[in-house]
Amino acid sequence: ELQLHLEDLHHADIAEVLDELKLEEATYIIKLLESDKTSEVLMELDVAYREKILSNLNAQEIASEIQEMDTDDAADIVAELSEELKGQVIEQIEDEQFANDIVELLRYDEDSAGGLMAKELIKVNENWSVTGCMSEMRAQAENVTRVHSIYVVDNKGRLKGRLSLKDLITAPSDAHIEDVYINKVDFVNVHTEGEEVARIMQKYDLEAIPVVDELNRLVGRITIDDIVDFIKEEAEKDYQMAAGISEDIDASANIWQMTRARLPWLFLALMGGFVAVLIGETFEPAMKKFGFLFFFTPLIAAMAGNVGVQSSAIIVQGLANGTISGSIISRLLKEVGLSLLNGSALGIILFFGTHFIFGHSYLIGLTISISLISVILIASLIGTFVPIILDRYNIDPALATGPFITTSNDIFGLLIFFSIAKFILGF
Amino acid sequence: ELQLHLEDLHHADIAEVLDELKLEEATYIIKLLESDKTSEVLMELDVAYREKILSNLNAQEIASEIQEMDTDDAADIVAELSEELKGQVIEQIEDEQFANDIVELLRYDEDSAGGLMAKELIKVNENWSVTGCMSEMRAQAENVTRVHSIYVVDNKGRLKGRLSLKDLITAPSDAHIEDVYINKVDFVNVHTEGEEVARIMQKYDLEAIPVVDELNRLVGRITIDDIVDFIKEEAEKDYQMAAGISEDIDASANIWQMTRARLPWLFLALMGGFVAVLIGETFEPAMKKFGFLFFFTPLIAAMAGNVGVQSSAIIVQGLANGTISGSIISRLLKEVGLSLLNGSALGIILFFGTHFIFGHSYLIGLTISISLISVILIASLIGTFVPIILDRYNIDPALATGPFITTSNDIFGLLIFFSIAKFILGF
Ligand SMILES: [Mg+2]
Ligand SMILES: [Mg+2]
Ligand SMILES: [Mg+2]
Ligand SMILES: [Mg+2]
Ligand SMILES: [Mg+2]
Ligand SMILES: [Mg+2]
Ligand SMILES: [Mg+2]
Ligand SMILES: [Mg+2]
Ligand SMILES: [Mg+2]
Ligand SMILES: [Mg+2]
Ligand SMILES: [Mg+2]
Ligand SMILES: [Mg+2]
Ligand SMILES: [Mg+2]
Repeated sequence: ELQLHLEDLHHADIAEVLDELKLEEATYIIKLLESDKTSEVLMELDVAYREKILSNLNAQEIASEIQEMDTDDAADIVAELSEELKGQVIEQIEDEQFANDIVELLRYDEDSAGGLMAKELIKVNENWSVTGCMSEMRAQAENVTRVHSIYVVDNKGRLKGRLSLKDLITAPSDAHIEDVYINKVDFVNVHTEGEEVARIMQKYDLEAIPVVDELNRLVGRITIDDIVDFIKEEAEKDYQMAAGISEDIDASANIWQMTRARLPWLFLALMGGFVAVLIGETFEPAMKKFGFLFFFTPLIAAMAGNVGVQSSAIIVQGLANGTISGSIISRLLKEVGLSLLNGSALGIILFFGTHFIFGHSYLIGLTISISLISVILIASLIGTFVPIILDRYNIDPALATGPFITTSNDIFGLLIFFSIAKFILGF
Repeated sequence: ELQLHLEDLHHADIAEVLDELKLEEATYIIKLLESDKTSEVLMELDVAYREKILSNLNAQEIASEIQEMDTDDAADIVAELSEELKGQVIEQIEDEQFANDIVELLRYDEDSAGGLMAKELIKVNENWSVTGCMSEMRAQAENVTRVHSIYVVDNKGRLKGRLSLKDLITAPSDAHIEDVYINKVDFVNVHTEGEEVARIMQKYDLEAIPVVDELNRLVGRITIDDIVDFIKEEAEKDYQMAAGISEDIDASANIWQMTRARLPWLFLALMGGFVAVLIGETFEPAMKKFGFLFFFTPLIAAMAGNVGVQSSAIIVQGLANGTISGSIISRLLKEVGLSLLNGSALGIILFFGTHFIFGHSYLIGLTISISLISVILIASLIGTFVPIILDRYNIDPALATGPFITTSNDIFGLLIFFSIAKFILGF
């Protein structure tokens, strides 16, 4: 009865139900239902949960689930298995071509075009006739959920162009493929990075893109549904990175996963805090006569942190989207201009606040305001150029947002603040 | 010659070239080239830049560009025009049906399914025969760039199901549509929010989704390319919001746009800083005997800020993805557990650091460590529950990340720190 009820549901919905169940119950359902249904359910599950369920299945059972998947998904699942189990599962796969495909896909980096592509696609030889092509294509279409484009290759398997199903059904049946195909087609190489694939597919509004190897031979196809997932995941990782969370976790992660993702950044911030304490100690002599300066340290640190995060966010996004244009000099001038503008506006408020709210002299108001402007300037330069430098050295600039920037800006901010105060007030 | 060269390029590439040109040059090229090419180029341009170019065209010229677009894009462009120009442009459109479609699309909120959909789609009546359907469909396909599904409607225009092109070409030609169509189809209502549309299309791997009105009549279709753009834009807005940037800007925005997006948050942070100064003043009596406490304020504020941002990021993402499950109580317990775990680990380091690095007594080390643990606990609770509360009151929880959380956590952090210190050390 449960079986009947579940079989009516879409696999993505069954996955949602399973995510809420106990592990044994979920495993039971995976074993109970036919693999043609459960294989798709498995794909939709949370990775950590799927790994647990798979650890309750033997190689034979895993292989029978995998055989029902598209090659891209099958390869992703096999990649998650232990080295030992990998071989056992692949051996159990009956369809030799399918096993070969998986072995091929396992070679590619998971975030590259090769790691995102599936082997399922429809290709026709440029020398075929339209009629011959139709029947051949129908046979191939058995394995392909959605046709999108029909790719045209030459005798050596090299990608030559594409044909839409619409073109094919409207073509005269005595024509040859070479007469009717479109010899312009967007494609990527197996080694193209996932983010670049996403950028191309978004830019040209593609629903699928063919993937070629080093010899320009058509070896796979990436479909937009997987790119949508990829874009979402990357955006979530970047968002978390900016918040100081270094592993992809969600609200349902357990305390240990959360700790592993969060504690390292907090530790970094604590070390930065130690340095801030040392800076405070260095300027202890000021405490006697200008103790109130220490009331302003959280304000200065907060402004440095916020400005730094703003600047770095814009640069990190610009680098990701390839929209950083113009020279380093013009960017420098822009940041300096922006900082002086924002800094002056805030500095004036701080100047009057220091005098009228906190009752300090104009000289002290001036000291604190000049410090603020300087801190904002330096913070925005750090926020702008640290990501650019990381990017130059091929380090993910997203690392330079959040805790990293706020911590370093706290330190530089305090140093600048007390140095300027010391210079003007003398202590 | 320029014309020849440009016509070889994809419209998205021409747009990239135009974005780099002077306004007059770009306008000249838009006027020079045929509208069937330039209309698509216009769609790919940066919004602000497009508005400038359009302001150099008259109603007639704008109408001729718009007529070459899909209805969704045409409506988006018309929506960007001044109220006066809107009417003039729509009047200039020759195709009456097209003008009506645009007027209809303008009614919907831009982030709703109605605002995302296009009127172009292929629909067939359930009572038609497959052969009749094929020819009717070919006529409709003229206006539709990509077919995706063929939607099946009843005599009243109500959505009944769908048919793939593959199904249609493999169906016996004497069959009726009602015999061969799939009566299960995902759809959304014109008022469904864009984020929900994206969630559904991602979950079910859809490349297009039909949109129905209140009477279940098929009124439009949303395609995945527009959802990819929508997902990207939303992710970028959320990322910027978390960094304290309140308008969608990119690295190429000018100083005034940057200031408008950034200064309000900095102003908020400055006001928070003023409160922090006041808190410091309140505890001034401690300065004489326990002045070193003030060296720790940046450390405490930094830890409060980082913890708060981490907690809020996870909740904001969870709310956006609908993955926040379980009761408030269980979430509370989890945050408390996590904070005590992370807080204790960091507290122990701080305890020994305070003693061995800064040479303070164990009592003082204990005071500062207990403060840190308390601050982390409160900061994580604020970070967790402020977004949840905002969400309850239908305010975008993304507002509660970044500057908002760091500023309020600075304040609560300092208050807790000094209060605990006062309680233990007495001053
Ligand atoms: Mg099964
Ligand atoms: Mg893969
Ligand atoms: Mg696009
Ligand atoms: Mg587009
Ligand atoms: Mg796939
Ligand atoms: Mg990234
Ligand atoms: Mg801070
Ligand atoms: Mg034109
Ligand atoms: Mg719209
Ligand atoms: Mg999906
Ligand atoms: Mg999928
Ligand atoms: Mg569109
Ligand atoms: Mg949002």
